[in-house]
Amino acid sequence: MGNRKIVSEAVIKRLPRYLRYLCELKNNDILRVSSKELSLRMGLTASQIRQDLSCFGEFGQQGYGYNVEFLFDSISTILGTDKGFNVIVIGAGNMGRAIANSESIQSRGFKVTGIFDIKEELIGSEINGIKVLDIKDVKEFIKTTNVDIVALTVPRERTKEVAENMFEYGVKGLWNFSAMELTLPKEIIVENVHLSDSIMVLGYKINNN
Amino acid sequence: MGNRKIVSEAVIKRLPRYLRYLCELKNNDILRVSSKELSLRMGLTASQIRQDLSCFGEFGQQGYGYNVEFLFDSISTILGTDKGFNVIVIGAGNMGRAIANSESIQSRGFKVTGIFDIKEELIGSEINGIKVLDIKDVKEFIKTTNVDIVALTVPRERTKEVAENMFEYGVKGLWNFSAMELTLPKEIIVENVHLSDSIMVLGYKINNN
Repeated sequence: MGNRKIVSEAVIKRLPRYLRYLCELKNNDILRVSSKELSLRMGLTASQIRQDLSCFGEFGQQGYGYNVEFLFDSISTILGTDKGFNVIVIGAGNMGRAIANSESIQSRGFKVTGIFDIKEELIGSEINGIKVLDIKDVKEFIKTTNVDIVALTVPRERTKEVAENMFEYGVKGLWNFSAMELTLPKEIIVENVHLSDSIMVLGYKINNN
Repeated sequence: MGNRKIVSEAVIKRLPRYLRYLCELKNNDILRVSSKELSLRMGLTASQIRQDLSCFGEFGQQGYGYNVEFLFDSISTILGTDKGFNVIVIGAGNMGRAIANSESIQSRGFKVTGIFDIKEELIGSEINGIKVLDIKDVKEFIKTTNVDIVALTVPRERTKEVAENMFEYGVKGLWNFSAMELTLPKEIIVENVHLSDSIMVLGYKINNN
């Protein structure tokens, strides 16, 4: 795909949506999609879609539209989901369990390889076939296995300390569920999940429907 | 605030982020914030922030910036979090439990008033002080109590049916965790939570850091 342009956050955030929609088309044995159809479905203009995709190469063809499988594979490659990522979960509470059990995450190439907790009563139990390990052993686990992403589902007051440890251990990405913004060196990427943001958007829309 | 302009999805999605940041400032007893500080923090230009907020009224003052408490209260009002919303959770699995236990959701004015499941072994158990009720009783619950939002955490194959029932019972908003896009009449607002989107964005950034 040659030299990549600098891709805006907004475009990056749309890539998983493209992938989801293309996956649906693929599952329905649809071979190609017009830029108009794709744009209606995505709630974007056809020109915005062309612009988004042009950050990564040439995908559409005048009068033909997009080849679904080719575009799906290309976006998978761009997102790196085709290569796969190893994920460990810190915190075996409800959210940690939900992540370890999530089919949609696994189907996108994210494999949960370890779950850690501090609570004695949880250590040794199994979640989706994965044994919960003692948080004391997480450093060794990261040093000896290939961990790409740490999903952080620890209580708010422990988040900063655990996140800093993860940086120190060389983890590349933090998926942070603690409802707390983290300030860490740019060598470690942090993606914050704020569930309350999404329910607030819903509340706004209900009030303004 | 007079007649509201039509507010774009992008602006609506930024409102909870403003609220979170202003809440942090409030908690640190900071009384005012310059548009430059606010823009640095939000990763937006000062002019974009002025534009965002101008959809709802006049908030800043040349040379003074924004009054933190006033702006916080105003955005709370815009989002409706000051009035509060009643939420029921359908599905008492890991994600349902995580929602029922979430402090960040409650702190934004969303009160979980009921939890429902189909599984006999879960019915009657308590989650965060709320008894899990039989899904059979959800229609009556919605008819007799004030339910604004239904958080849907049922298995994918049951999502469509449950969602259609919720529409029929007059629910205003669906918070859908099923990783499935729902097509419903516009009288019911659907906000889809795709956790896998967020981990895919993280994966992309790791690959391109």
